[in-house]
Parts: sequence; structure tokens; C-alpha cells
Amino acid sequence: MSLKTKRIENYPAWYQCVVSEADMAENAASPGCMVIKPWGYGIWERIQSLMNEEFRETDHENAYFPLLIPFSFFKKEAEHVEGFAKEMAVVTHSKLQEVDGKLEPAGELEEPLIIRPTSETIIADSFAKWVKSYRDLPVLINQWANVVRWEMRPRLFLRTREFLWQEGHTAHASADEAETETKRMLEVYRKTCEEFLAMPVIEGVKPEYDKFPGAVDTYCIEAMMQDGKALQAGTSHYLGQNFAKSAGISFINKENKPEFAYTTSWGVSTRLIGGLIMTHADDEGMNVPPRIAPYQVILVPVIKKKEDEEKVMTYIRALSSELKSHTPFGEKIRIKVDARDKQSVDKFWEWTRKGAPIICEIGPRDIENNALMVKERLKVGQKEIVLKDEFVSSIEKRLADIQKEMFEKAKSRMENNIRNDITTPEEFKAYFANSNEWIEDGTQGKVAFVRGKWSGDEQTEEILKEMKIAIRCIPFNQTGTTGKCLLTGKEATLDVIYARSY
Amino acid sequence: MSLKTKRIENYPAWYQCVVSEADMAENAASPGCMVIKPWGYGIWERIQSLMNEEFRETDHENAYFPLLIPFSFFKKEAEHVEGFAKEMAVVTHSKLQEVDGKLEPAGELEEPLIIRPTSETIIADSFAKWVKSYRDLPVLINQWANVVRWEMRPRLFLRTREFLWQEGHTAHASADEAETETKRMLEVYRKTCEEFLAMPVIEGVKPEYDKFPGAVDTYCIEAMMQDGKALQAGTSHYLGQNFAKSAGISFINKENKPEFAYTTSWGVSTRLIGGLIMTHADDEGMNVPPRIAPYQVILVPVIKKKEDEEKVMTYIRALSSELKSHTPFGEKIRIKVDARDKQSVDKFWEWTRKGAPIICEIGPRDIENNALMVKERLKVGQKEIVLKDEFVSSIEKRLADIQKEMFEKAKSRMENNIRNDITTPEEFKAYFANSNEWIEDGTQGKVAFVRGKWSGDEQTEEILKEMKIAIRCIPFNQTGTTGKCLLTGKEATLDVIYARSY
Repeated sequence: MSLKTKRIENYPAWYQCVVSEADMAENAASPGCMVIKPWGYGIWERIQSLMNEEFRETDHENAYFPLLIPFSFFKKEAEHVEGFAKEMAVVTHSKLQEVDGKLEPAGELEEPLIIRPTSETIIADSFAKWVKSYRDLPVLINQWANVVRWEMRPRLFLRTREFLWQEGHTAHASADEAETETKRMLEVYRKTCEEFLAMPVIEGVKPEYDKFPGAVDTYCIEAMMQDGKALQAGTSHYLGQNFAKSAGISFINKENKPEFAYTTSWGVSTRLIGGLIMTHADDEGMNVPPRIAPYQVILVPVIKKKEDEEKVMTYIRALSSELKSHTPFGEKIRIKVDARDKQSVDKFWEWTRKGAPIICEIGPRDIENNALMVKERLKVGQKEIVLKDEFVSSIEKRLADIQKEMFEKAKSRMENNIRNDITTPEEFKAYFANSNEWIEDGTQGKVAFVRGKWSGDEQTEEILKEMKIAIRCIPFNQTGTTGKCLLTGKEATLDVIYARSY
Repeated sequence: MSLKTKRIENYPAWYQCVVSEADMAENAASPGCMVIKPWGYGIWERIQSLMNEEFRETDHENAYFPLLIPFSFFKKEAEHVEGFAKEMAVVTHSKLQEVDGKLEPAGELEEPLIIRPTSETIIADSFAKWVKSYRDLPVLINQWANVVRWEMRPRLFLRTREFLWQEGHTAHASADEAETETKRMLEVYRKTCEEFLAMPVIEGVKPEYDKFPGAVDTYCIEAMMQDGKALQAGTSHYLGQNFAKSAGISFINKENKPEFAYTTSWGVSTRLIGGLIMTHADDEGMNVPPRIAPYQVILVPVIKKKEDEEKVMTYIRALSSELKSHTPFGEKIRIKVDARDKQSVDKFWEWTRKGAPIICEIGPRDIENNALMVKERLKVGQKEIVLKDEFVSSIEKRLADIQKEMFEKAKSRMENNIRNDITTPEEFKAYFANSNEWIEDGTQGKVAFVRGKWSGDEQTEEILKEMKIAIRCIPFNQTGTTGKCLLTGKEATLDVIYARSY
């Protein structure tokens, strides 16, 4: 019961197939936008819930700022507006009116409003009101919101005109403190990806030319997809005093002198779900790590004769309540009893395509043996008959093992596919002459990441553009050795990650 | 330390004062929009969390649909577009471009997009794809989202151009089932208001002329504010086959014939927080019921000498961890240790204005006595020294008592102020000749609700408009008696609730 399209046949088509067969999202009637269906949205809610805990532990508070930003705000920070001007949805009218029997936009606004592509400018405006003295700092805010960027080539989860995200915005009394915050939140993102999404990442900083518009430094985490392409999974920006100056966030410092605040911003989005799919899904469909699965255990009754129904359902209810005394990962367990009026085999494949971690089937014979049939998504095609008590007492370990295995599998794929033995521009060119394709587990693919030297010259930007590859980041762990820049052949010490990307 | 403006002096100014002094929200730079600050947003998150549980228990799933709705969708349902056309934000361009050195909207869209004022049309479009057979029904969806309605007289929480809400949308195989759903969700709203927000409501149905645009029936819950005005706290609409016909949600029924589905929609918004303020706040500031308070217990260290700090903080941490073994209302207790570098008296007033249910002050002398100073927000001005163990063991009861007392106080205000002894248009007119003003607790105010007869005549709409009052609802519990319509004097049997409203 594999998907219509396999990874090896057509990787991009396979991706669309997973999204649709796992019932996670679909294209909306509004061009370039998506409908996030319950299973996809449930994963997002799990990510929200786990990240909210991380934010709370790092003393951030959630708040909400307006969707619509006055046009004039974008003019305040020159680099910022330049970065976003080409993809902004502009609101110009406030009603519809009938003209010659046809409805038309009316009530033209004096000043157009921009649907937030990101909220630095509007949030800085509030911070400017909130902050007067060093005693008011730091301000540590997070917002869960929708944003709109007019993407021209939309793809579900990866790149849609509207997407959901969290954006953190903070203001500090010193540059040091703000830079520490920027890195601290990058670490929260690393933890989110690796521990919750089981998606390994590389931490680093973006090259100067690829910074967030208006930032001093942009830090990022980069993940490797199953086709060896990179996915930027999260970014954290140190904004220096740029936005503080344009919005007027100033405070009286301890020396009793006025000073502009130092701000940061950082975000991850529903794009993470795209990354999740291309990290864990296979030819059977999606595969969701237990920590973020909306349901971790599915209980499917197998009832052939009507007279067995009562008995089976009673057994399942008891099993469900026994499981509920367990708290995998220190949280309430999430169980779904799927009692819909459908064939159990169809239910099994439905939950397999959705990627629920554990699917259990329970019929009259299992009850006689005080057992159940257990199928783990990670071992699709295998099944085990397990004694009920044994299953219940092992549930926390089972889920923890699945989580761990998923991470390790992805981690070894990434590690196997970072080439650091390419040392000349010629070899480099030959390597990237190949196109990206699906990398089988445990193997080395034709193309993925190259870790190598970069001279930092301006001309390298042009070469990258021609080759259609990118410097994904300058990783934190630098070797400090000297070698040839893989683009120019010049001597260079900086290690960077080169890759094609989403 | 009362608020600058008291209720008796200027009720609307007092409201603004509470919102601002409790640090719940502020006006945004974007005209008519608000910034929801952490304390206000925290209350909203609590409402979300409790409602999500109710939705789960009634088998609804969360999903997310696009912010932007194609213009053409609104033309499909004539009543619907007419109802919303006057307050729609219209997106007409997709970028900004420099023209003569000035940035201007560019990239005009072929078809304008509307920022959702509500999502019936776009969600119905998805339902039409999802539903083929009676086996696909019911579809039970909820969405948490922001919506925009171009309000001309915005007021924080009560009426803002952008607000946050949940909107439920369901499709069913029969009219009966859909009507049952509509009422079931109204009951969820009643429970939310009464049990969580401690805000009593009257359930009923809207008069024909005041229905949601496109609905067959609109059910609602109405609450009484402290000035006797009504606040519509939630609505639940039975939409019949109207939206199903315009969007094409049809299915093959059990008789193997095509049939249009029966749909419902229902919503509550951040407006609830406005209702919460006008139900519970007083001249000292906000007062948040424990079930939805972001923090239920505030622990304030009282440290006069630096050398006491260590001892006091150790005691507080121990107290906090002892409290955490308790689960008021079956949930994790929410405690805030306020260790900011500020005077404890300032902290006390800050939390009082925010309306935290219980504020505890702990200094060296309290520790000697193994005690603490307890101040309940509901009994502002009073304080008690309580033994620590006694406080810890009574915390669940204390919070439950506060919740109950808040509800009962509001309930008796409402019951005392529904006049049902007004029986003629003359008395009725004389009653509403008064203007609304603050009603002191336990008393009967000059103007509030009148429960009386309504003939249902068309002309009554005009009379209501002139008197600037409204029929808030036709309550479920009808007496069935006959009397005079309070507007026309004609014989009538229908009981309705008359009031001024927000």
C-alpha cells in the first residue's frame, strides 16, 4: 500500500503525495495559500505547546500585535523595506460598494496598510512606548501569528503566501546581552528541531549578504532533507540599534544617559512541517516523531461480527485508561480510539500514511489472550502480538525508543552526506554538476552538503548564483585551518556549508 | 490606590483606565487596531486552552484556513456579502515600488482579496471538496484566527478592526443534526462564560432581522455589564443549506441521492475579555477569575535588608514547590514569584490592578512564624496572616471559593436588574428615558434589562432604532403567557430581553 509516487521516482511529486495522503494540508482557493488540515495543524499545535514551554523557561511572554502595519513604518528602516517591498500584500480599501450593479472596492484608505510580512517595525513602535529606563529592560516578547509574503512559486508548508509562525522580539540594555539572547534562542531552536522534531541541524551564522534585512547578524539552523538539499529551519537575528533608532526605543541607562536599546528577533514557521516531512516520511507516507504526534497510539477495534463489538470496545476502553496512567516524555499520553464505521485495514493504512507512531489492532482473539497486535510505524510491514500488561508497562520506553531512532537515522544521514574531502574548485564544480536526488538511508547520495573553505570575496556571490547553490551558513565549530576557497581557489580559513536549498 | 477614574464618575473612562492600568492592551499605531499585552493575551490563552478541551470533548478538530478570501467568493451568498460589504479590508496590490523616488503600491492583483471578516465562504469551499458521501459527515472543525472588520468606532477588546476569535464550522447530513449542533455549541459557550469567566449569561435566539447574514437562525448568549448594558458574548448559527448551496457542499445520502449538507458556524472572540472587565473589575482595577487567571497566586518577597534576601527567597521557593503539588480545578496551579528589583508595595498594587486572585507577601517575620501574609483580590483592603501549611492545604478551596463568589456576585447583579414588572409601552418608555450608569453591587440600577412581550411586528424595528435600544434575544425559557407588546401595545406572547448594548 505504498504511495502512488515513490521518492526514487520523483522526489518533488512524492512530497506533494505525502502531504495529501497524510491529509495534512491542501492548496486553498486563495492563490498561493494553504488549508492546514487537522492532522497537519495538530502537529503545529504540538510544536507550539513545546516551544511555549521553552519560551516560558527563558522568561519570554506571549503577546499579540496588529496584522496591518502602516505603510509609513516600512520606510523607517531602509534595508528592511528594500528586503520586503517585492512581496508585500497591500490593503488599499475598506469596503465593497455596488457600482453599476457590480461590487467594487471602495472607501480608499488615506494611507495604505501592509499585511505583516514580519513585525519588527510595528513591535518596535510599542517597545518605544514601553521602555523608558534601564529598569524596563529587557523586554522579552513572543508572538504566534500569521504573516503574508507574496511568494511567486508557492509549495505547501515550504513556501506559501500566508504562513503561521512565531516571532520573538526582545530589547536589551546592552549589545552583549542582546547577542547572548540571539544565540540563546538559536539554541532553543536547535533543541526544538533535534529533541522534538528529531531533525538534526547545523548551527551557524549567515554570510553578510544573506542577512535578514536590517540585521547586524543573522544566525540560523540548517537541516538536510532526504534529497540532500538544505532547509533553513529557523533564524535568530541580532539587530543592534538599527530598529531602535528608526522606531525610537531609547532608555535612560545606569549612567543616567539616554541610549538606544539593542534588539533581537527570531522565528520559526509552519515550514518546519515541510522539513519534518522531508526528514522522516517514506514511501508509505508520513512518519511523525512521538513528541509532536497529535496522537501517539491509535487503538483500532477489529470487529468481524456485530456481537463482538461490545466486548472489544470494553477491552479497548480499559486498555486506553491503563495507558493513560503513563506519561511519556513527562506529558499526558495522546491516544485515539478509532471506532469509525470503516474496515480496520483501511484505518490501519490511513494512520500509516498519517505516520502515527504506534497503531494497535484489537480483535476477539487478542482479548482471549489478553494481548493486542502492535504495529510501529517505523517498522512498517512488521507486527507483533504483545501481552496487554507488557505493552502498557513498556509504552513510555517504546515511544522514547522511536523518538531516538528517528533522530539517529536522520543524524546519520546528515553526517554521511556532509562531504569535507572536496578541496579544489574543480572537484567542487564536478560534485555540484550532479542534480539532487533521493538519498537511501545509510548511504551517501550523489549531492548533498559540502563543508569547505570560503574566501568571503564579493565575486563569490556571483559564482554561487551561477551554480545555483548557496552558502547555508558559517558553522559555529570552525577548524581554523587554511585551504583553498572552493569558489575562487584563493587561500581561505573560513569553513562554510555549501548546498542547494529549499 | 484606586484608579484615577471611578465607575460612578465616568463609566466609559473607567473602562479604558482598567485596560491600561491592568496592562492588558493598548491602541496600536495601525488605526482601530490593538496591541494585546502579555496579561491580556495570557487571559486569552487560558480561554483558548479551556475551550479547546470543550471542543475536543465534543469531537471537534482544529484546522487553519486562509486569511485572504477571493473577492468572488463573497458574491456567492447574497445576504452574506450584503452583511459584510461595508466593513471589509481589501487587498489590491502585491508589492511596493519606487515611483519618482517614492514608494507606492504596485503589482495590482487581477482579483482583489478580502481579509476574512469571517470564514464561512472559504471554509465551505474546502468542505465541498471533503464531503462526497454521508459517510464523510459530520465534519466538525474549529479555527483560532484573526479577523478584520472595518469598525468605525473602535474600543479596546469590545470593538477593534482586527480581533482574535475562534470560529467553528460544521457540516451535517440532516437539518436536525445541524440544529442540535448549533445548540450544543451555544451550551459550550454558556459553560465557558459561566464556569470559566464567572460571567452569567442569558441564552436565546436573535429576532429574524438581527440574524447573522446568511443564517437561518442565530442563537446567542447575552451578558449584563456593570452599567446594565448587554454584551453579546457568543453566537451560534444554524445556516441551513444556504452556504452548502452556494459553495456546492453536496453528498450522496443513505438513500443514494444527492443532497446539500446542513451547516453551522459559531464564534466567540477577544470581546469576551471586554465582557470580563465590565463584569468583574472594580475601582481598584481588574479582577480575573482564578480559572482563567494567567497566574492564580503571586508570591512577593518583602526584603528590607539585603542579608534577608537569601532566607526569604529560599522560603518562597519551598512554598512555591509545595503549592505546585496542588491542582485547583484539576489543572496545574499557576504561580508567579515576583522577584523584580522593585518595592514590594508597588508590586502589590501592580498585581492588584491586574487582578491576580491571590497575592502573598513574605518577609523575615513571616518566616519566623512559618506564615505568610495573604491578600485576596476580591477582598481588597483586607489581609490575613496565615500559617504556611494551612495556606498550602487550603489553596484549592480558596481558589474555588473565589471563582464561585465572583460568579454569584455577577449573577445576583444580573438577576436584580432584569425588570419583568414593566407591562406597558408608557412605563417602558419612561424606564429607558434614563441613561445607563454604574450599578452598585447588590442594588437595582436605573436602567438595565427589561424582560417583556414583543409582538414581532415589522414596525417595532423602527421604534427600537429610535429609542436606541435592542431586542437582545428571545430567551429559551418562555412563559407562554399573553400581554402587551412593550413597543406597540398590541397583544403578544413572545418574551424578549430589551436592553441597550455594546
